[in-house]
Amino acid sequence: MSEVIATYLVHDAKGNLNKKAEGIALGLTVGSWTDLPLLEQEQLKAHKGRVLEVSQLESCEKTNQFLGKHVTKGIIKIAYPSVNYSHDIPAILTTVFGKLSLDGEVKLLDLELSEEMKKAFPGPKFGIPGIRDLVGVYDRPLLMSIFKGVIGRDLVYLKDQLKQQILGGVDLVKDDEILFDNPLTPFEARIAAGKEVLQQVFEETGRKALYAVNLTGKTFELRDKAKRATDLGASVLLFNVFAYGLDVMQSLVEDPEINIPIMAHPAVSGASTASSLYGFSSSLLLGKLVRMSGADFSLFPSPYGSVALDRNEALGIAEYCLKEEGLKQAFPVPSAGIHPGLVPLLVNDFGIDSVINAGGGVHGHPNGAIGGGQAFRAAIDATLSGISLKQAAETNEDLKLAIDLWGAKEVGK
Amino acid sequence: MSEVIATYLVHDAKGNLNKKAEGIALGLTVGSWTDLPLLEQEQLKAHKGRVLEVSQLESCEKTNQFLGKHVTKGIIKIAYPSVNYSHDIPAILTTVFGKLSLDGEVKLLDLELSEEMKKAFPGPKFGIPGIRDLVGVYDRPLLMSIFKGVIGRDLVYLKDQLKQQILGGVDLVKDDEILFDNPLTPFEARIAAGKEVLQQVFEETGRKALYAVNLTGKTFELRDKAKRATDLGASVLLFNVFAYGLDVMQSLVEDPEINIPIMAHPAVSGASTASSLYGFSSSLLLGKLVRMSGADFSLFPSPYGSVALDRNEALGIAEYCLKEEGLKQAFPVPSAGIHPGLVPLLVNDFGIDSVINAGGGVHGHPNGAIGGGQAFRAAIDATLSGISLKQAAETNEDLKLAIDLWGAKEVGK
Repeated sequence: MSEVIATYLVHDAKGNLNKKAEGIALGLTVGSWTDLPLLEQEQLKAHKGRVLEVSQLESCEKTNQFLGKHVTKGIIKIAYPSVNYSHDIPAILTTVFGKLSLDGEVKLLDLELSEEMKKAFPGPKFGIPGIRDLVGVYDRPLLMSIFKGVIGRDLVYLKDQLKQQILGGVDLVKDDEILFDNPLTPFEARIAAGKEVLQQVFEETGRKALYAVNLTGKTFELRDKAKRATDLGASVLLFNVFAYGLDVMQSLVEDPEINIPIMAHPAVSGASTASSLYGFSSSLLLGKLVRMSGADFSLFPSPYGSVALDRNEALGIAEYCLKEEGLKQAFPVPSAGIHPGLVPLLVNDFGIDSVINAGGGVHGHPNGAIGGGQAFRAAIDATLSGISLKQAAETNEDLKLAIDLWGAKEVGK
Repeated sequence: MSEVIATYLVHDAKGNLNKKAEGIALGLTVGSWTDLPLLEQEQLKAHKGRVLEVSQLESCEKTNQFLGKHVTKGIIKIAYPSVNYSHDIPAILTTVFGKLSLDGEVKLLDLELSEEMKKAFPGPKFGIPGIRDLVGVYDRPLLMSIFKGVIGRDLVYLKDQLKQQILGGVDLVKDDEILFDNPLTPFEARIAAGKEVLQQVFEETGRKALYAVNLTGKTFELRDKAKRATDLGASVLLFNVFAYGLDVMQSLVEDPEINIPIMAHPAVSGASTASSLYGFSSSLLLGKLVRMSGADFSLFPSPYGSVALDRNEALGIAEYCLKEEGLKQAFPVPSAGIHPGLVPLLVNDFGIDSVINAGGGVHGHPNGAIGGGQAFRAAIDATLSGISLKQAAETNEDLKLAIDLWGAKEVGK
């Protein structure tokens, strides 16, 4: 049967999880059941939601708004027949978490799609092998850095920053997500400037790199803008998907004329993932749904930095970016607070099919962005060769300076 | 100076709110300041975020993930120059709450737009007077009801339900938000059927009513679909705006060929409003932003029902739907758990410029939807005449049956 199975974490003050689950399964599908005549039950059978699982986790004293009250914590799984909704993200979310998102302490942990439902989602157009082909790197995590302090700056400033970053050995440079179309560095001019710098560095060093330009503006202008970007030779589109909608990104990916990779930025997503009681699990939103909707890269807060995500949640996102789903894999990009000293942890946690992404950890290096990039590359090489960063730093000055400044974490310590 | 001022509620474990505020104001605009040469400071001055207010609310023991730790609760106001971003919702949200939404316990309470920024937002196309003209009702709250249990049902069933509801005296009937385009009751056929029933009832009774049809499907098909709906004579579009994006709704409103009112449904919004620590305030998201983006109606959970919103939050939404903003007013529609016995409370809390919206409170009436509608209308008339429901029920059988079934609340009791 074609359906979507939703898994919820609930905290219920009434304590009857079975009744709650039954109420959700009916309320979000056929409305009522036991009071229907048998003939109508027969007609509506294919549309009825089914409770698949109700398991109580614990009954605990809550101290939040239910101060002193007993609430029951549990997991509920419900199957929603796909005949009830159109096969797109807005319809699925409205069905399984529309009204329900407003109805007490309920968090949507996961969605499992039947094979027929999966067909409605493209997944990444390029995926990990496609992106690796673009940069010619197959045996290590990719290295990415972010423009820094570019608001109010002109194209000359941007081009110089881009060049410094690539010369240090990064594979990708992304726009700051808060850089919009603006008179000093307009979208199309950034693409042209980026192309020029990438070409120049390639000719000088033979090094291939990509520049992710921030696709911004009004929703209904994005497709044309993305097509123009493709025509102008943009290499990657950065996209603040949660400021727009997952379905908008999916439509960009499904458009055959927009033939460049898409990098999904998590901006605004914290509004609906950060609570342990409400909203979406990070792994579902930033992992599974972002990949299904077609992003080639999914950025999310690393478990190490100042903007930190719980380690299990970060690993859950990466798992959904990579696991067998009949779709191409998306690159997980744990971000924020990354410096060269974290490379062993990153490789241990996220493997080589990931992107190591740094802002301050590249630009803040005593030798500038070039030194920062080189320190990262040295840290990656050392880690993959089983050499400790401390040992590698003995013969690499940039790595040594980075470790002196930010420290170095060894795995398991 | 043209800018957007964001007000945040923060819980900070480090306890230095001034430093936190300064970090946000710089981090989300020019990046750094004190270490910049004077010349660059001069260049970037117009782009720099400014801290307008930092006020500590209390320093309290937290019992959540900071078990036993001291956190400082406070309000931070920051002004973001509008020269930094394009004047659309995705750019504003990404700037003021992009990365920040992922950075600890921060809730976005409010956004204040300068006059220049306000020009970028259309507000409701019809507004309260426009909607009142459509139904010819000027002196009372409007009454709306919702189709019930329509998944898996055919057009004959829908038409009959629609007719029963309107005959009871409701002014508007809305699709269930989980009714999508489907073979039994396709979008265009529903519009035609609705138009036929509305016309029939008008001819029989002289009563004008509106039917809000659910606009669903892929984002980039919505504009054409909404235009077809207009051409086919649809009276209102229901829209699950939070499953798509506020900017998508705004573009529908801005399209001169889509000349019918839009009703914003709050489906999925709870994911980013329900937490007291994270996400958006309900008044901002369901009140101010929904109105700015052009909805003529904003539905939200009433403070009375099973799916209940805190009363102050519900009142805050209504206030933002109605207050002077240089935009037309949107109808606040407190929903869920509404029955005739709540009318005095609703009128007291939300005034006559609101919509009283019921599902079970209409359909569950002992005399069916007709009786339910008539009970509501009697309750509204009584309340506006200063007569208690109990007294009015003495001469109105439908109201009496409703009160016997669901009870009646008097204001202040």
